[in-house]
Amino acid sequence: MTHKLLLLPGDGIGPEIVSQAERVIQTLGRTHGLSVELETALIGGAAYEAEGDPLPEQTLALAQASDAVLFGAVGGPQWDAIERDKRPERGLLRIRAGLDLFANLRPASLVPELAEASSLRPELVAGLDIMIVRELTGGIYFGQPREQGADRAFNTMVYSRSEIERIARRAFEIARLRDRRVCSVDKANVLEVSEFWRQTVTAVAADYPDVTLSHMYVDNAAMQLVRAPKQFDVIVTGNLFGDVLSDIAAMLTGSIGMLPSASLNEQSRGLYEPVHGSAPDIAGQDKANPLATILSLAMLLRYSLGETVMADAVERAVARVLADGLRTADLQSAGSTPVGTQAMGDAVIRALESA
Amino acid sequence: MTHKLLLLPGDGIGPEIVSQAERVIQTLGRTHGLSVELETALIGGAAYEAEGDPLPEQTLALAQASDAVLFGAVGGPQWDAIERDKRPERGLLRIRAGLDLFANLRPASLVPELAEASSLRPELVAGLDIMIVRELTGGIYFGQPREQGADRAFNTMVYSRSEIERIARRAFEIARLRDRRVCSVDKANVLEVSEFWRQTVTAVAADYPDVTLSHMYVDNAAMQLVRAPKQFDVIVTGNLFGDVLSDIAAMLTGSIGMLPSASLNEQSRGLYEPVHGSAPDIAGQDKANPLATILSLAMLLRYSLGETVMADAVERAVARVLADGLRTADLQSAGSTPVGTQAMGDAVIRALESA
Ligand SMILES: CC(C)[C@H](C(=O)O)[C@@H](O)C(=O)O
Ligand SMILES: CC(C)[C@H](C(=O)O)[C@@H](O)C(=O)O
Repeated sequence: MTHKLLLLPGDGIGPEIVSQAERVIQTLGRTHGLSVELETALIGGAAYEAEGDPLPEQTLALAQASDAVLFGAVGGPQWDAIERDKRPERGLLRIRAGLDLFANLRPASLVPELAEASSLRPELVAGLDIMIVRELTGGIYFGQPREQGADRAFNTMVYSRSEIERIARRAFEIARLRDRRVCSVDKANVLEVSEFWRQTVTAVAADYPDVTLSHMYVDNAAMQLVRAPKQFDVIVTGNLFGDVLSDIAAMLTGSIGMLPSASLNEQSRGLYEPVHGSAPDIAGQDKANPLATILSLAMLLRYSLGETVMADAVERAVARVLADGLRTADLQSAGSTPVGTQAMGDAVIRALESA
Repeated sequence: MTHKLLLLPGDGIGPEIVSQAERVIQTLGRTHGLSVELETALIGGAAYEAEGDPLPEQTLALAQASDAVLFGAVGGPQWDAIERDKRPERGLLRIRAGLDLFANLRPASLVPELAEASSLRPELVAGLDIMIVRELTGGIYFGQPREQGADRAFNTMVYSRSEIERIARRAFEIARLRDRRVCSVDKANVLEVSEFWRQTVTAVAADYPDVTLSHMYVDNAAMQLVRAPKQFDVIVTGNLFGDVLSDIAAMLTGSIGMLPSASLNEQSRGLYEPVHGSAPDIAGQDKANPLATILSLAMLLRYSLGETVMADAVERAVARVLADGLRTADLQSAGSTPVGTQAMGDAVIRALESA
């Protein structure tokens, strides 16, 4: 079976990290018989420069016709001052909405070799393995009405029952594959939308009696992530709270250049992207860490293509190069071998071929 | 000059920690000639039980007639299921609005003796000294319209120009007493209200050319607080983002039982409270740490009463008991002397008397 994949390199370091993942895809063709039809399209600032639109119609159409999308990163200082609807980030937000990618999965786990990269005391993060399930197509990111006037501006944080139900179900189902604990995060002591969130998640929980549900206010959840992150298994939360909490969780690992993410729709088609951004300051210098993108490819193989064996193989190859001591600039430590983007890609490919 | 002070003990550990602060006030009368008229009133769950309202009219009237309010904590599981408008937290939110306490100052600094209490590596937090300036009477906490319907619910995150201007001015003025750097935190890449926030803060900055202004997205700010917190001097942000960021900053110190806060209005009248909550699980057991409340009293003396000498004396007394190795249960470590709430209060009073 031939899978249709779309690559969206985007801006900054996006092209160089996605091109390492593309080499891994080609390697999997030789080593594991992966059969893909690959397309590449423009998004973000690159698309704005070429077409005047951060998400050209053709890009969205290609994405809709694909089984999965591998995304690099968007954004850069040169587009900070242009009108809001044309900014690179709008391309990302619009493709999330356009593909109905309501479920954003952000695993934060700590490879044993990288425990010393964390800013937390090693004993607090060793063995960390959290899954943040963030609602991605609703909440204040997309809520109407929204307006910037001359003397005031506002946005609307809104959730419907069905939006909450589907993300809650996804979280409970993921918890069943893990430690069967879901912590739902809200601000129900202040916000009506959060109180509704809490009631709806609680109602959904009745269908998952084998999963334990708890609730936490967002301020406390942020604190607990810093204090004792290993208390969490799955965290489910809305779009804005998930944006903040998943970045905290990512930073706990100290190696944000290692972290993949998946954004899925009801059919488990999805967009896969590294958690880190476009890092314009190091773009084009062969310094970027391609591993988060390569691990995003592993998630893509697992969740959208059902190619579990290949997903495992890619993850093992990444573990292998880390065990061998190879580190890009973001992860340098005593005794490690410094490598560039391309050489890191080479090493993963060698590990795949020799496995 | 006689100052009018109102004590609002509240719920949980509130009464026992406020009563230690009250003993410190009485001591200052003897040692420094502090002259106060003290009143005590009900708020939160205690007020709901007695009067059916978490902020009885009489409490608000007394607060409005006072120079400053010292607040303990509110809330507890027994009030989680009652109707939203009667919950203990509403008492706190309503007194903030009723006194127009728009400026919430949350210092997060690390007493050298407690560096090992942090969950971060000691070198990342040693000498930490951040001031978070949180807008407290606007944003999504109070925004209209807000509604919880049968199938959807929403809140409105709204800021007017004047609301942003006054909190920005306060932040710049505080920065002038510190390292003259303000970082304004928003989510301007997604939210119109944040873009307006950013533009307005930038405009205000023109009046403070001696202060350096930077901007950061809230997800990145949360990450940076975990990665390298000492990069910040003053952080200014809206109500919801400030709720989350100030709790992260508090947790970085590892000793949330030590952290005071001030909520001020235009006239610098204010409400002072520990950052920690009502901790119902240890209430009434002589286990709570009274130092955050005693340090809140020091802020009260400094900001609302202008009694700098006494504020300094209280802060020195607290430093002294810590240097002597006294620790409540929340701060136990090897070699420290465990003390209860009352004994910690005794020690602070002795330190004040013998200074
Ligand atoms: C770039 C930005 C719009 C985006 C978001 O806020 O969702 C990013 O921070 C993320 O988390 O993917
Ligand atoms: C109790 C709650 C309403 C309050 C808030 O969210 O403001 C608390 O978390 C705080 O930060 O003072």
